[in-house]
Amino acid sequence: MNYFSAVAVFFTLICSSRTHLVKEITTEGCSLPADLVAEIRSYQAKVDEIVNAVVNGSHSKEVWQELADFTDDFGNRIAGSENLENAIDYMVKRSQWHNVDVHTEPVSVPHWVRGEESATMLLPRVKKLSLLGLGGSIGTRLPDGITAEVIVVEDFDELKRRASEAKGKIVVFAEKWISYGTTVSYRSKAASSASKVGAVASLIRSISPFSLNNPHTGWQSYESGVTKIPTAAITIEDANLLLRIHRRGIKIIINLKMEAKTFGQKTSRNTIVQLNGTSMPDEYVLVSGHLDSWDVGNGAMDDGGGAFISWYAPILLKKLNLIPRRSVRAVLWTGEEEGLIGAFAYKKAHQDNQIVLAMESDEGTFNPRGITMKGTNKATCIVQEIVKLLGSINATTLELSDDVGSDIMIWANTKVPLAALKNDNERYFWYHHSDADTMEVEDPDVLDRCLAVWTAVAYVVADLSVRLPVG
Amino acid sequence: MNYFSAVAVFFTLICSSRTHLVKEITTEGCSLPADLVAEIRSYQAKVDEIVNAVVNGSHSKEVWQELADFTDDFGNRIAGSENLENAIDYMVKRSQWHNVDVHTEPVSVPHWVRGEESATMLLPRVKKLSLLGLGGSIGTRLPDGITAEVIVVEDFDELKRRASEAKGKIVVFAEKWISYGTTVSYRSKAASSASKVGAVASLIRSISPFSLNNPHTGWQSYESGVTKIPTAAITIEDANLLLRIHRRGIKIIINLKMEAKTFGQKTSRNTIVQLNGTSMPDEYVLVSGHLDSWDVGNGAMDDGGGAFISWYAPILLKKLNLIPRRSVRAVLWTGEEEGLIGAFAYKKAHQDNQIVLAMESDEGTFNPRGITMKGTNKATCIVQEIVKLLGSINATTLELSDDVGSDIMIWANTKVPLAALKNDNERYFWYHHSDADTMEVEDPDVLDRCLAVWTAVAYVVADLSVRLPVG
Repeated sequence: MNYFSAVAVFFTLICSSRTHLVKEITTEGCSLPADLVAEIRSYQAKVDEIVNAVVNGSHSKEVWQELADFTDDFGNRIAGSENLENAIDYMVKRSQWHNVDVHTEPVSVPHWVRGEESATMLLPRVKKLSLLGLGGSIGTRLPDGITAEVIVVEDFDELKRRASEAKGKIVVFAEKWISYGTTVSYRSKAASSASKVGAVASLIRSISPFSLNNPHTGWQSYESGVTKIPTAAITIEDANLLLRIHRRGIKIIINLKMEAKTFGQKTSRNTIVQLNGTSMPDEYVLVSGHLDSWDVGNGAMDDGGGAFISWYAPILLKKLNLIPRRSVRAVLWTGEEEGLIGAFAYKKAHQDNQIVLAMESDEGTFNPRGITMKGTNKATCIVQEIVKLLGSINATTLELSDDVGSDIMIWANTKVPLAALKNDNERYFWYHHSDADTMEVEDPDVLDRCLAVWTAVAYVVADLSVRLPVG
Repeated sequence: MNYFSAVAVFFTLICSSRTHLVKEITTEGCSLPADLVAEIRSYQAKVDEIVNAVVNGSHSKEVWQELADFTDDFGNRIAGSENLENAIDYMVKRSQWHNVDVHTEPVSVPHWVRGEESATMLLPRVKKLSLLGLGGSIGTRLPDGITAEVIVVEDFDELKRRASEAKGKIVVFAEKWISYGTTVSYRSKAASSASKVGAVASLIRSISPFSLNNPHTGWQSYESGVTKIPTAAITIEDANLLLRIHRRGIKIIINLKMEAKTFGQKTSRNTIVQLNGTSMPDEYVLVSGHLDSWDVGNGAMDDGGGAFISWYAPILLKKLNLIPRRSVRAVLWTGEEEGLIGAFAYKKAHQDNQIVLAMESDEGTFNPRGITMKGTNKATCIVQEIVKLLGSINATTLELSDDVGSDIMIWANTKVPLAALKNDNERYFWYHHSDADTMEVEDPDVLDRCLAVWTAVAYVVADLSVRLPVG
């Protein structure tokens, strides 16, 4: 499997991961040795110490304040941008200020720049449409853009049936929201599907279940050998408006202007913070989130919250002088949005067998409920015992899933156990990849509880007498 | 009280009305004559006929389709615009198509035009702010706009305390949302308050409890004798961002450009549809909503839904051949957003004593619960008996309030009983006066139930043997 197929496969995995998170499955048939259960339960005092430190104690609201300072200063951080590199420099300095070991590792990332863009319905009446070009899209010719008649379809099947009508037109996909995993195919495949039937551009209904007229961007890729056409997302409201008008048989004409352009690859960096273990420092629990974001909103939710609770876990442990036997390594991925680029680079550079548990929080840091996990029965049973220690913040659920995290899914076909933060993320896709992804989504108290879950699980797994079983 | 004071008073009333709607008060101490109660209960079959006709019957989804056709064709409809007048012409023709009596009455309305507008934070980093100028605002000088340092305050008191810092600056009000009635004072008074301390422009946090980065406009008025300065709303997200940066002591500079301009008065029209009563045609139940909207979104919720269930009530009664003894008169107000202009004109032109009950739906057409009312004990007891007939759609609540409707509040100090549609409008202000006010807010089945409540109450009140008591 070459690199690009891998990206495609893992994209499918990421996409579907968000869909299944709400499905709660509890482990059954756990038969851990009594002494191991007793050992895990003996961590109650230390878990309480972590929880109390952030929920009511001297480290309360610290991680939210760090995230607010960061996103307020830098705003959004798309791969390839100077701003992302400045933000990484800041995280290195800030880690040093917190007195933890930090280094970065180079990663080659794509460099796509949106530029100015607009869409205006010219017929049957003039109306500006809220628009976000999709990542990787080509631009339109400028300065006039593309002015063309519109065909609106509700799904790929309708486009096939009406293929003969699409030539020279802008295809609008007014697909219904089913789930992210299902519906996102309209984002990734709209342009190539429309191009194959002769369309000059494609617009999709934003991939979201709810809208206050906010469009949602996201990566898309052109099928090899198919003519590239400009592609963008419009709002749910405007897509449905166009659909209604089109169904009445009324002619619609849209003018689309996009300056979007892909430049040569740039060098970005994964950022790695390490708290060395006392007796087995080469083995480590990996806690992670991605520091890059889309070029809209402030990237506070996707994935500021996840990146910051991961970054702060080893820092907090050090502040509390809770140094586990194994290491806790926070990795802030780069280039996640363009296809887990940073994670693939990390995996290539670290072909070891030292990851005890790979954790990633990239599905929101709303009210935490526990952990979603993929691993052996024994491993998941151990983590289930660990989350039982989080009763004071009601985060005791252990859910099993094949779809865990985004970047860490690159280890899905290995024996590395994987864990994600289970949280009340029903509204995640309201904000996702849109200008609404801001600090308003992140609540200081909630983020503290997420940090407590994240740090406690990483700490206990890293400190246990036994390594999390992989077989 | 002169005209403008009246507007101010009634504005306060409208503003607070939305706040209290969720407070449920049931009538107590009703002692209606047994024969009157029996008479009201005898309307059960006719009320069921109305409900069934729209909920499951041959008129199901008709009103939603009418509203969709209308808002899709015309979009938003601000007072003074040619588009509003075209929309009124359409409603006249459409009423004639439905074979009901229709006429219009002229109203002089303000003509404010937004033009292009933008706000960009230049320091500490460049960021475009989503912006909507407030209705009635003056523009900035052009083409450069106003570039000035920013002072961010959380309330009027803070501005007073820091008055000496405001001179030559842009004042940003990052006021907290409490309720519409309370918080809207920041929209109406921001400009004059800021101007009095020497500011060059004012920006407010949008008057809304929830945001996906959508700004909310609305009318504002300049205090007499105070220098007019440009004023606009930014999003909750951006206001809080500016507040956090400002609290850190970091200098903020914003460039504000607004083409906003007020032109001379224009002639608009109230649209009046009448179903004449069989025996007392001069007496009438007035059912109403406003046809004008803000110049953003499509005005489907504010007040498309309310206007259309009112417009369709007499049409539906005629289609069902349910002609009451008194008339049912639908009035589609113009110029509501600029200060109940159409309603004041109507009241001046119709100084009669023939309004049996004035109804207005202008607080959303979400799932209906019944009626909110202001009137004598006897009148409210009668309407309470009437809404009991709406058990099949669970809309049996009669709530008492001093704040009922918007336009109809011009009769608040008279004996005319007033009624509004009580509905599950907790999210009303998410959409209000923003680009998110579209057909997505309006559900066909829910709108049918709203129409059923509205039509049934109007019909029974118009047909009862007794006129709704005013004393």
